Parts: sequence; structure tokens; C-alpha cells
Amino acid sequence: MVFEKEEFSKRLHNTKLAMQKREIDILITTNPANMNYLSGYDGYSFYVIQGVVVLLDEPEPIWIGRNMDVPGAAFSTWLRTENIIGYGDDYVQSNTKHPMHFFADVLKEKGVTNQRIGLEWGQDSLSVTSFMELQKKLPDCPFIDASFLVNHVRMIKSETEITYMKQAGEITVHAMNTAFDSIQEGVKESDVAARMYQSLIKGTEAQPGDYPAIIPLMSSGEKISAPHLSWTNRPYKKADIVTLELSGCVNRYHAPLARTVYLGTPPQTYIDTVNIVLEGLDEMLHVIKAGITCDEVARSWNKVLSKSTIMKDSRVGYPIGVGYPPDWGEQTISIRPGDTSILQKNMTFHILPALFQADTGFVVSESIRVTDDGCERLTHLPPNLLEK
Amino acid sequence: MVFEKEEFSKRLHNTKLAMQKREIDILITTNPANMNYLSGYDGYSFYVIQGVVVLLDEPEPIWIGRNMDVPGAAFSTWLRTENIIGYGDDYVQSNTKHPMHFFADVLKEKGVTNQRIGLEWGQDSLSVTSFMELQKKLPDCPFIDASFLVNHVRMIKSETEITYMKQAGEITVHAMNTAFDSIQEGVKESDVAARMYQSLIKGTEAQPGDYPAIIPLMSSGEKISAPHLSWTNRPYKKADIVTLELSGCVNRYHAPLARTVYLGTPPQTYIDTVNIVLEGLDEMLHVIKAGITCDEVARSWNKVLSKSTIMKDSRVGYPIGVGYPPDWGEQTISIRPGDTSILQKNMTFHILPALFQADTGFVVSESIRVTDDGCERLTHLPPNLLEK
Repeated sequence: MVFEKEEFSKRLHNTKLAMQKREIDILITTNPANMNYLSGYDGYSFYVIQGVVVLLDEPEPIWIGRNMDVPGAAFSTWLRTENIIGYGDDYVQSNTKHPMHFFADVLKEKGVTNQRIGLEWGQDSLSVTSFMELQKKLPDCPFIDASFLVNHVRMIKSETEITYMKQAGEITVHAMNTAFDSIQEGVKESDVAARMYQSLIKGTEAQPGDYPAIIPLMSSGEKISAPHLSWTNRPYKKADIVTLELSGCVNRYHAPLARTVYLGTPPQTYIDTVNIVLEGLDEMLHVIKAGITCDEVARSWNKVLSKSTIMKDSRVGYPIGVGYPPDWGEQTISIRPGDTSILQKNMTFHILPALFQADTGFVVSESIRVTDDGCERLTHLPPNLLEK
Repeated sequence: MVFEKEEFSKRLHNTKLAMQKREIDILITTNPANMNYLSGYDGYSFYVIQGVVVLLDEPEPIWIGRNMDVPGAAFSTWLRTENIIGYGDDYVQSNTKHPMHFFADVLKEKGVTNQRIGLEWGQDSLSVTSFMELQKKLPDCPFIDASFLVNHVRMIKSETEITYMKQAGEITVHAMNTAFDSIQEGVKESDVAARMYQSLIKGTEAQPGDYPAIIPLMSSGEKISAPHLSWTNRPYKKADIVTLELSGCVNRYHAPLARTVYLGTPPQTYIDTVNIVLEGLDEMLHVIKAGITCDEVARSWNKVLSKSTIMKDSRVGYPIGVGYPPDWGEQTISIRPGDTSILQKNMTFHILPALFQADTGFVVSESIRVTDDGCERLTHLPPNLLEK
């Protein structure tokens, strides 16, 4: 187990407080990151229906999943055997039996009849069919939207969580340096990707890397405007801009970082853009501290940007932490104008003022934790453009 | 583009036929694999809401996604610019604006008022909230369950798809051989994982590897019963069983393979188990051909197994093809007793009679395509236990 039982108890306590605020008696989370956060469960099994159930008056959550994954739950969770419950393989991708019928049976055995059940309506890992089938089997239970309830509980990190994020950050820096060393004219994108992956998984002497929730993103050449395509076997060319965004992962915690490489000597107009973005990033890192709002951080960025002709309409940061494919973001709040959420101590963010324009693509970022009077970087690597 | 326009047109035609059978006028697929299949779209952006819309009377689907991903859609799809439509970043993870409102606006502009809309109720990438918000904005449209409609269309592969799967299979074999070469007493699991990843992404001289939909699965030691946990920094020990399941990926197509390594000389009881499983796999590969049912294949496996005391309650195969995290399976039919689906020429399966018992863990598999009179392996590697 990668956290003490006390830490899991505290998470459960905070989750129950949030449930009480929304008048939820029973919470079923099917989101892999939330399942991990509450139970410790860490299996690559989220292509089948599974969940962690929190009952207000029970001292432990219940893990429900496929029989095949019960041993994995026993190894990775803090739960007693009786709270790890598997369903038969005839429920898997079946046209006749639905795993949510099994969930309902477990709840009925616990005496559930008309309690208020929270489900994550707005999160991907709960299908419409799962929602309907559970309702059918528990017709007297009111159903409540509990979307992102656990995600919000996750936002303030413990010292242990911060430690894992810093360890992930060390791996991030290793992998980024591998990219810096590998990228040069004539080398194939895919060969650089292969080396980056090796770095990310090998990790450090003390700590291997787990699979990150997002693949290493690496656009170059004409595809600089398309940040989410994967690598090809195209060889790098002179005057290529290469944008890189990647994260190491330790115990499912991330510390992503974006940097940019220029193959050759960039034109002055590009350097001007780079300098504005670096100034904007720096300004945000100076402004961030406990007590200010996302909106205020975003405005500090926009103020710097307004000195230039650069346009940027997408958000410039989001909270990070535990994650599974396809996202290392917590999907709660965003650093953008109008988001009045208040930053608190030990929230962790990926501050990412990235530009993906075709001719001026430049990405740079920092992963940070909020402190009382500022912020602390989770990784250590100069932010400047790397000219090669 | 990795497929000819004609191939996309054929896929669209087959999808429309399936829509007509279920009386669906408009299909919205939000599943990344289905989006790829119909449009070619290939971005790691499925942590935001996006979709491909098929209208019965339009000659092309419409891609709708985040503005930031419009250039990626332009690069990777066969669609004309007018059919690639982006929404503003203020729709991303917002509490006030929902991307499905934007989808509704696009449909209304196309004249949609009361047409029958198919959504994938039973698939993960459509949230309950997405379903509700779309219904709200199109109150006169009947909504129909179109779960796995496109998944079923995907099942019979073209020659080009088979070619990509064989290329993926070559990468699979490279990575498996890398594992065979790397695994030995004292070497860390995570170092082997790092080398396997490098193999998977580097690919072959002709073809780099894309990120597979499932991580390399590699259980060993006491965790042999937990097939879906990821690697640790535990060094391999004498008498370890090491189970491996992995796939190369080319243009999002997979050809997974499972093999087992034994560090030392296995006891005769273990060899007996291995031999029964190999015989059962061989028997299934002899039975498989166009025209027989999943049930018949499963029975041929059970018949061999009945000569032993081995118990196996999970399915022994599933269809494969295009895939994104978290699954390379098509989630349509299964090789298990009672599934009367009929195998057809150029369906492709991962035949996986895996045992995950604590003391007798043994996995072996083949990826195959169904032919008129048998089946063809998509990878070439002896199935036997590797003793090291």
C-alpha cells in the first residue's frame, strides 16, 4: 500500500462531508482516479464496469468489480476481504446480465431500500445504461448527481501526495532531457518517442515510472498546430519547432511539463513570442498564492499578453494529481477568466500557457503546488526555448 | 490519411444500413475508436467531449470537438473543412456551458427538429449529463440506444486493416522477444517494462509503433493472480512465473499476444497444466472458421480442459481491431459458452485461454483472422512456455 490507512480514512471522511452537503447517503464512483483515491485500487481494468461504493454509515468503502480483478484489489487496496466483491465473468460485455444489477444486489444485501444514491452523471466512466439499469433495480432510491464530488475532495494534497508528485517530476525531467538529447535533424519522431517512453518507465534508481495518463505529446513541423496527434516516422528537419508535453507518473500521481525545442536559430519574431510567453508564465507564478482566484491568475497572464499581438483563447492551467488514461487533469476548475475558484494551500496545478499557432507554436509549463505566500515548482528544469 | 476515401465511404454506407435497421436518422458516436473508424480522427483528446455525427442523408460525417483539435482533425480525417466544427474553450469543463448544447446548435442549423437520434447509451464516452443536455436542447427528437452499433460494423476487416494488424503483430513479436531477452533473475520488472515500451514505440524499420490501448501487462511472483496491476521495481527471482500480454499498434490497429516465461525448471504439475492449455488453444485454432459460433469454439476449449482439473470461468477470446485506451477489444461478442454469434470471414479475434491462478498462472494467446476454411495467425511466435 502506498498510503497509510490513516490517509485513506481522512479521504473517506472528507468525501462523506461532501456527500452530506449534497444529501447523498450512498456514493458510487466508477471513475478510475476516484476509485484509486478512495480505495487504493490500481488495476488497468477500467474497460469493464467496476466501482467503489461509499456508504455514510460504513467505516470502509466497498470495491465491486470483475472476479478476475479481485486479487488485484486485495493487493492494492486498504479494504478488508469482505469489502472486495467480485462479479462473475458472465456479466462482462453481456447482452443479458448487467454489472449494475450486481451492484444493486450488493446494496440490497446491505439493507438499502430508499436511500439517496449519488452517481457521477457528468463523468465518462458511468454509462447511460449503467445509470438506467441501477435505477431499474432500486426503484425507490432517489438518484443524485455527484459528478466531480470526489475530484474536488482530491484537490488539496497531503505531504505524501506531494512527495509522489515530486518523484514523478524527477522522472518528467529525465524524460524531457532524453528528448532534448535525442531530437536532432534526421532523427525520426518515433525514435525520440521510444526513448522518452523508456525514460518515463525506467524512472529513477529509487522509483520506477508508472504509465502516464496522457501519452508524450510531441508536435513538429507542419503539425505544430495539432497538439494531440501522436508521433510519426517523419525525420526532424532544420528550422523545425518541436513542442513537448509529458509527465512521469509515480503511484498514479503526475507532474507534467511542456518545453519547446528549435532546430537551428529562430527568427527574431519567434524569439519575441517566446519572451512574451515566458514573461506571462513568470508573472502567473509570481501571482499564485493561497487566497487568490483562478480568474486573477488568468488576468495576470492576459495583462502580459496584451503587450503583444498574440491571441490565446484556451485556458492556461488546470489542477493535477492522481490520474488514469485519458487525463491527468482533475477536471474541476480552470485557470481562465471568469473562474472565481479560490486557490488553497497544497492545491497542485499544471500552469500551461501554450501556443499552438501554425507558425509560432511554443509551449512551456510548470507543475506547482500552492503555498501560503506563493508557489513551489514540482519539477526543476529551465523554461527557456532549447535551440539545437 | 491511412485509408482511401473509398474505404471510409464503405464504412459510412455500412453504418447507415445498421442505422436504418434500428430506425435511426442521426447517429452521434463519442467513442474514440468509432470516431476514428468513421472519420479517421486520431487525437489524444478524448478527455474532452467530442463526437462524429452521421446523418442518413449526408455524404460525409461531421466531426465536432474542441477548437484546439480542429487542426488535428483536418490532418487526420477525410472530411471537408466545412464538416470539421470546433467549439470554444469556454465549453471545456465548464459549469455553465455544455458541449452538447453546441452539438444541438449544429444539428438545428442542419434543419434537425424531430429526427430520431442514436446515442451510445452503453458506452463509456457518453456521460449521463451529455445525454440529458442534448435531450434538453432537442426536446422533440426521440432518442434511441445505438450502443455498439459502429463496433459491430467494425468487426469484418478490409485487406488494408488486416495489413495494419499484421504490421502491429510484427511489432508485438519484437516487443515480446525484447521481454524474453530481458527477463532474468535480479532484473527489475520496471526495467523490462521500459525496454518493452521502447520496442513497442520504435516499431520496425518500415513502421513505427503507436501507443497501444492497453499497457503491457506483466504479472510475476505472488502477483501472478492479479493480471491487471502494473510493474513494480521488484527484481525477478528464481522459480518466478512471468505472464506477459501486450500489443503493438499501427494506425490504431492491434494484434495482441500473451506468453509466459518460467525462471528455472518448472515442476511437472505445472508442465501438465501448460500442455493442457496449449492443447486447448490448438484445438480452438483448429475449430475456428467462418460459419461456426463463438459457443462452438468455447466448447472445443472446454472439452480439452475437462480432461484436467483446471478451472477457467472467464471468456477465452474477443474481437480486436482499432482501439484507444482503455481497450483494444471491440466489446461486441465473446468466445464463451452460450454466445451464438457466428464467425465470419475477416473477423479478427484475440484467442486468450489465460489462467491466473496463484500457483498455476499461465497465459498464452494468438491473434487471428477468420478465413473460409480456418484461421490465419496475425503474429508469428511459438506459443510454448519459455524456460530461462
